[in-house]
Amino acid sequence: MSVTAAREYAASGIECGIRRSAPDLALVRSLVPATGAAMFTVNRMQAAPVVVSREHVELAQPQAVVVNSGVANAATGPRGELDARATTAEAARLLDLDAEQVLVLSTGVIGAPLPLAKVLAGLRTATAALSTEGGEDAAQAILTTDTKAKQAVVQGAGFIVGGMAKGSGMIHPNLATMLAVVTTDYPLELGEAIELLRPAVDESFNSISVDGECSTNDAVVLLANGASNAARNDDAFAAALQAICSDLASQIVADGEGATILAEITVTGAASRPEAKAIARRIATSPLVKTALFGRDANWGRVLSAAGSAPYNGGYARLDPARASLSFNGTTVFAAGVPQGQEPELDGASCQIELDLGLGESKASYLTSDLSYDYVRINAEYRT
Amino acid sequence: MSVTAAREYAASGIECGIRRSAPDLALVRSLVPATGAAMFTVNRMQAAPVVVSREHVELAQPQAVVVNSGVANAATGPRGELDARATTAEAARLLDLDAEQVLVLSTGVIGAPLPLAKVLAGLRTATAALSTEGGEDAAQAILTTDTKAKQAVVQGAGFIVGGMAKGSGMIHPNLATMLAVVTTDYPLELGEAIELLRPAVDESFNSISVDGECSTNDAVVLLANGASNAARNDDAFAAALQAICSDLASQIVADGEGATILAEITVTGAASRPEAKAIARRIATSPLVKTALFGRDANWGRVLSAAGSAPYNGGYARLDPARASLSFNGTTVFAAGVPQGQEPELDGASCQIELDLGLGESKASYLTSDLSYDYVRINAEYRT
Repeated sequence: MSVTAAREYAASGIECGIRRSAPDLALVRSLVPATGAAMFTVNRMQAAPVVVSREHVELAQPQAVVVNSGVANAATGPRGELDARATTAEAARLLDLDAEQVLVLSTGVIGAPLPLAKVLAGLRTATAALSTEGGEDAAQAILTTDTKAKQAVVQGAGFIVGGMAKGSGMIHPNLATMLAVVTTDYPLELGEAIELLRPAVDESFNSISVDGECSTNDAVVLLANGASNAARNDDAFAAALQAICSDLASQIVADGEGATILAEITVTGAASRPEAKAIARRIATSPLVKTALFGRDANWGRVLSAAGSAPYNGGYARLDPARASLSFNGTTVFAAGVPQGQEPELDGASCQIELDLGLGESKASYLTSDLSYDYVRINAEYRT
Repeated sequence: MSVTAAREYAASGIECGIRRSAPDLALVRSLVPATGAAMFTVNRMQAAPVVVSREHVELAQPQAVVVNSGVANAATGPRGELDARATTAEAARLLDLDAEQVLVLSTGVIGAPLPLAKVLAGLRTATAALSTEGGEDAAQAILTTDTKAKQAVVQGAGFIVGGMAKGSGMIHPNLATMLAVVTTDYPLELGEAIELLRPAVDESFNSISVDGECSTNDAVVLLANGASNAARNDDAFAAALQAICSDLASQIVADGEGATILAEITVTGAASRPEAKAIARRIATSPLVKTALFGRDANWGRVLSAAGSAPYNGGYARLDPARASLSFNGTTVFAAGVPQGQEPELDGASCQIELDLGLGESKASYLTSDLSYDYVRINAEYRT
């Protein structure tokens, strides 16, 4: 059910002809006035839908989201922006909303123009198909080379949070985008959605690696329509939102083509939280660490070497080898600067890598997958 | 001849037993008093030889360099530092120098202890073997999984610059180190060597990617003994030094295991030089760009996406899609924000990727290789 699990949401997913014989257009709307928020890629090369949606979310509260797959509408120049605006305008007309109340997200090939006529015709079909049972169809229609739909629902005390996402831990050729739409019937006041969304995204979608790439189209949208009339319990809602985002984020990593192992990198004892995150991220994106994981090699020298070269603030995050300790699946391999002569086993489908820096109280985690032959195969194939 | 091409240098390369049946200990010395400089890895996880050599070069002018391959003496705790100090002390005793006048560099497995007795015995053999014809032997003894020795010589107006290096564009398991030793008989005053070395390294060894990894052991050493008695022409010397460093750096990229194509990334029109370099580096290290190169796919969307997410100063380097233009091998694919519908051919063993940002006058280049199945194979293999 995902985005239609909460009360008073309708969604649909249909084929509009961008992709060959696959659903490629999703529509999600709140049936009663909602508040909301969105977070977008920090890539300077922002796709047209990101430019337009970012503008819309500044001007109005989002009530509906259009998502197309197959074409990213990125690096498409002025035409791409006109196409994204035409998409939101037509959706608004069909849904009796203002264009600024509609967000548009796209995922697919970079540099190819959006087939606008197909999208506009598709929007009419998608509007007609809107259903409070349509979450599953919508979740299917936003996929590209994902092997499965990614959905999550949490039932809170009197409210529901549901979400759908697309993206894969090992990113695909030209289809590098991570998108997520989360809906809830929890009551939020204007302006509150972004305050709740930001920490949830930081601990979930911003803590998965992938391959260090940051797409032109990444976006996470939250709609909150209050239809539950639940009593406010913001801690419970924040926890539910975090759970949905983390669940969707791990589904993304787990669906990585080529991924054979999931690794959770935990950095503790850092001098500051940004440094903990910089180091966890550097380890999680290191090709040497990721190929070692593929080989099921607890190659701790590579982890330490990666940790020592984590970019931070124009320099490198603080690390003192003499205070650092490292373990793989609970086996300590390096303690306070001294190798322990232990060789941990890495034979499962997941592993825990824990680095304690011994410098402070800050910590951060990253979820990553390995770098396999299939990653190279998938990404070296010609665009077809 | 490399490090013994300039006048009054002797070198040797011998087997001391760290590696199995391969030369693994090199010694280079100036036969007359020299001045010199060294630059080391910025990795916070500095290997013991880096810690010791960095200290030595602060205290004295380097006269000799010991290099061992097979063991990196990194992440080896207090014992590693004692081993590195014992190595320089014994070399100094044999060469009649102060320990501070000797630098030690190591490359090989991280976390394994240096077999000190073998190194100390080897130093006696290496000292006895010192020869003004020993450059080739030394260049062989510093290799690990490199497939060939890397040497370069430039004959200037009355002076010679020669160098040797080890490392590979696609970095090896635990053997991620880039080392270079450059010798010259050009006359330099105390303190001048570092001023000349820094820009040469910035444009060469610091402008090759590899896989974004920065080793625990990377080091470049310059010795200048003035034995040519050449007239000073610093522009000519700087150019020769740059040529040697660039030559050695391209030999490193070209020797990358798994590398099937060399790509030169040039970024022009950047708002500042550091931003030009950040963007060139981001493109050169992007797994998506590198796998596309392996597939001979001029996948320009990936190049733009990488360019838009180049970390700089806690944020991202400036890039305005509407001003950016991109070409592959001279074919423009994207001009001032608009796709050009051109599909360049990428079928050779090298390619030129040129990105003009249209923002300013700054530029930078990076040399990179592709990400192939062999990279994964080499790096996923168990440590043996």
